[in-house]
Amino acid sequence: MIEQPIGVFDSGIGGLTVVSQIRKYCPGEEIVYFGDTARVPYGTKSANVIRQFSVENTRFLLKSEPKLIVIACHTASCLAGDYLRRKFPGLTFLDVVRPSIEKALAVTRSGRIGLIGTPATINSGHYQRLLSSRNRSVHIFAKACPLFVPLVEEGWTSNSISKKIAAVYLNDFKKQKIDTLILACTHYPLLKKVIGRVLGKKVELVDASEEVAWQVKEYLRGRKILKENGARKIRLYFSDCHAHLKSIIPAFLHGERITIREAAFPAQAGRGKLCTRL
Amino acid sequence: MIEQPIGVFDSGIGGLTVVSQIRKYCPGEEIVYFGDTARVPYGTKSANVIRQFSVENTRFLLKSEPKLIVIACHTASCLAGDYLRRKFPGLTFLDVVRPSIEKALAVTRSGRIGLIGTPATINSGHYQRLLSSRNRSVHIFAKACPLFVPLVEEGWTSNSISKKIAAVYLNDFKKQKIDTLILACTHYPLLKKVIGRVLGKKVELVDASEEVAWQVKEYLRGRKILKENGARKIRLYFSDCHAHLKSIIPAFLHGERITIREAAFPAQAGRGKLCTRL
Repeated sequence: MIEQPIGVFDSGIGGLTVVSQIRKYCPGEEIVYFGDTARVPYGTKSANVIRQFSVENTRFLLKSEPKLIVIACHTASCLAGDYLRRKFPGLTFLDVVRPSIEKALAVTRSGRIGLIGTPATINSGHYQRLLSSRNRSVHIFAKACPLFVPLVEEGWTSNSISKKIAAVYLNDFKKQKIDTLILACTHYPLLKKVIGRVLGKKVELVDASEEVAWQVKEYLRGRKILKENGARKIRLYFSDCHAHLKSIIPAFLHGERITIREAAFPAQAGRGKLCTRL
Repeated sequence: MIEQPIGVFDSGIGGLTVVSQIRKYCPGEEIVYFGDTARVPYGTKSANVIRQFSVENTRFLLKSEPKLIVIACHTASCLAGDYLRRKFPGLTFLDVVRPSIEKALAVTRSGRIGLIGTPATINSGHYQRLLSSRNRSVHIFAKACPLFVPLVEEGWTSNSISKKIAAVYLNDFKKQKIDTLILACTHYPLLKKVIGRVLGKKVELVDASEEVAWQVKEYLRGRKILKENGARKIRLYFSDCHAHLKSIIPAFLHGERITIREAAFPAQAGRGKLCTRL
């Protein structure tokens, strides 16, 4: 089992930040990543669809026989995490929700915690339920920010428009006097500057990608299946290999030796390959 | 053949504006619509993926034996229109590009025409090629506006942020002295006010949904397969029937008697239904 790779899936490319952290914490491990770039985004879609896509992504990763699967997407973690655990009882799924919550609870002093994410993440109530069950005394203030993902994808992470949009979404948090804000979407850390400018330096921004990687390492070490030395291989698969993917990936995985292989995404089996070689 | 329905597909719900116009021009016709809400948007994806999705959407509509298929999505029209015609040689596809071009050429006086659409639409060069081949003397100025679709979906069609974003995208058109702007995306007519405020009243905004419907009518009348009187049935299928679909649809199809049926989208055949009853 020690030789098996770590599987990671995300709705697109944002999960590569998690891959990059796992690489730091588990440098000997092989990683297989699937990004569902053909059907991204998940955050504006229904629970049924997010579950179905997540099952298909898992089935794709299963072909690489991973020792565990990391759900790097907050929307899939919230809406499909427990569903996947029931559907694949022999498989371990680690997600990005629990590490975010643990970090937020460790950081907050006032117990007033803000939460931002996609509409699907926020409306699922999953974060809110888990936070309350871990600590009944915290106050949670949640806000969906649908324009943050397209803003980041347009590359407008620090102009005056992104500042104005952040002000509209985040203004209530100031009245609510939060001291901690959970960034419950892999895209949002790229807006940290703008968010910080609206909320001020006193509000701690929680980006859990590092904690997720730490959790992966702890899990593997605890079961004595952590591979300490290895070929440092990363295989990346995408359901849509659009032209600019090749130029974006180095920003996430600087200096990494990346192996990319061609694959047919199972959802498309028998009807032509959807994934192509990058 | 006269009794067969008209098939219409779109990447999401925007194509319902075309359905609404077809209803006006061909009130006796039955319409079957497929909106790919599970995989929307198309405009940021690659040609391969847009073609594959369009083939799957066509196969879905074929089960209703349509007399013709209208591609209501500009991105699919540009990137998959000719591909579909080659792939399904016995079938007629009408798209939204040609009517937009005809209307723009009829309207322009200076021959300086602006074009806005999704990145995939603009980068395909399809509109630009067709415009040049119809009239070699026109000057075309094209600009992708990736944030316009998410802005409309957030409902921010006339606030100060949408005005600022429109100004960033459209400012060059003022220097380029266009007198006509093609709105090459079904979402953009909802931003007409904001666009008009940036460009001024002298620039004519071309929204071709009415011309598409007129073209459908002319095609059917020419072949003597226009159904003048009928049950006025509209069947709507979506690959993701999210909760707010029911509340959005009346805005597109006011006062229409709509029949909605359950269906399994072919891409998901054998692996559970993706389309559900609305």
